Amino acid sequence: MRFGIIGTGGVARTLADKLVSLGNEVTLGSRSKDNETAVAWAEQAGPNGHHGTFADAAEFGEVVLNATPGTVALEALRAAGAERLAGKVLVDVSNPLVFSAEGELTLDPVNTDSVGERIQREFPQARVVKTLNTLTAPLMVDPARLAGEHNVFVAGDDAAAKAEVVALLGTFGWPAESVIDLGDIAGARALEMTMPFWIRLMKAFGTAEFNYSFRK
Amino acid sequence: MRFGIIGTGGVARTLADKLVSLGNEVTLGSRSKDNETAVAWAEQAGPNGHHGTFADAAEFGEVVLNATPGTVALEALRAAGAERLAGKVLVDVSNPLVFSAEGELTLDPVNTDSVGERIQREFPQARVVKTLNTLTAPLMVDPARLAGEHNVFVAGDDAAAKAEVVALLGTFGWPAESVIDLGDIAGARALEMTMPFWIRLMKAFGTAEFNYSFRK
Repeated sequence: MRFGIIGTGGVARTLADKLVSLGNEVTLGSRSKDNETAVAWAEQAGPNGHHGTFADAAEFGEVVLNATPGTVALEALRAAGAERLAGKVLVDVSNPLVFSAEGELTLDPVNTDSVGERIQREFPQARVVKTLNTLTAPLMVDPARLAGEHNVFVAGDDAAAKAEVVALLGTFGWPAESVIDLGDIAGARALEMTMPFWIRLMKAFGTAEFNYSFRK
Repeated sequence: MRFGIIGTGGVARTLADKLVSLGNEVTLGSRSKDNETAVAWAEQAGPNGHHGTFADAAEFGEVVLNATPGTVALEALRAAGAERLAGKVLVDVSNPLVFSAEGELTLDPVNTDSVGERIQREFPQARVVKTLNTLTAPLMVDPARLAGEHNVFVAGDDAAAKAEVVALLGTFGWPAESVIDLGDIAGARALEMTMPFWIRLMKAFGTAEFNYSFRK
């Protein structure tokens, strides 16, 4: 399959590497056509790895993944172009983290809105699914790094799109029964608002490689 | 030991019942001296169960628990009186849930502040510890209702107060190693902000009797 990834940071490249390793073709998209990180990534990725603008990546992908920081996601997706996202599954893995000069974390948006919801509102033809934002990048694409069952979440308005994302997560190593459906795209708010908790847990555990499981 | 509980709702009475069952003395505090729920609770609780005003409960308790809704916690604690809270461990189990007419959940405060932090700021002599707000009431006082290890959290500025709360949680059935220290009282923000996630999980699981455990 062909994937377009919006963003060139660590999360974007981790997802891109995994998708290529699974035999997919990936275009990594950035603001400019000649972004050094994207060029270098494509060079080492082999024939199935490409780079281009946000628009190039969105045009290329049968599925598009937003891996920009949540605070700039809408701007990046506007550059990608609504017409190139229409009808496609748009996987949003972003978090709207804002760190103050003192290192204090807040979220923007928060509480009454979320990045996932904003994307779905601004691109009503895209089939937005929020997922993977509760995990450090290495775990997103390799859940077996942790022993035992643990969970990832999906939220979105389009049930068929969520099913496609569950299948995609399956190729990453997530058993379907480990994927918890949190309902409509407003669930993105719930997922993004776990970030302050996640950061405190990371400090308590001394590692970013942890994940939720649940007792019921 | 003597405990004062601020509030008379389901969480307050669940905590009160458990504390009495463990041989403690409890005063359940409400806005008025003759709150029907508090009177009824004290009647069935036996000689170690009392009722009174917020001030009576705070005066009575060697440890005070805030089990009011987070949106009214400060008002209730002002009525309890700063001088009656000074020097005491003040356990805050509240969440600042606001439900719209359409049933939509938001939090107030959120993101840049929390109930736990507001209480600590307004009552600097109290030794505030946030805990238990991530759990349905029956699980707070009986973690063995769920099989396997699962976790509860503490956040607060006073390490000795947190240690006292860990001991108190131990009497409820929480092994010390199941209690995760999330740092200073700003961790209350992280804990309160998990509420939208908790509500979505409750809907996904079809029960409020679930809890976090972690893979590392």
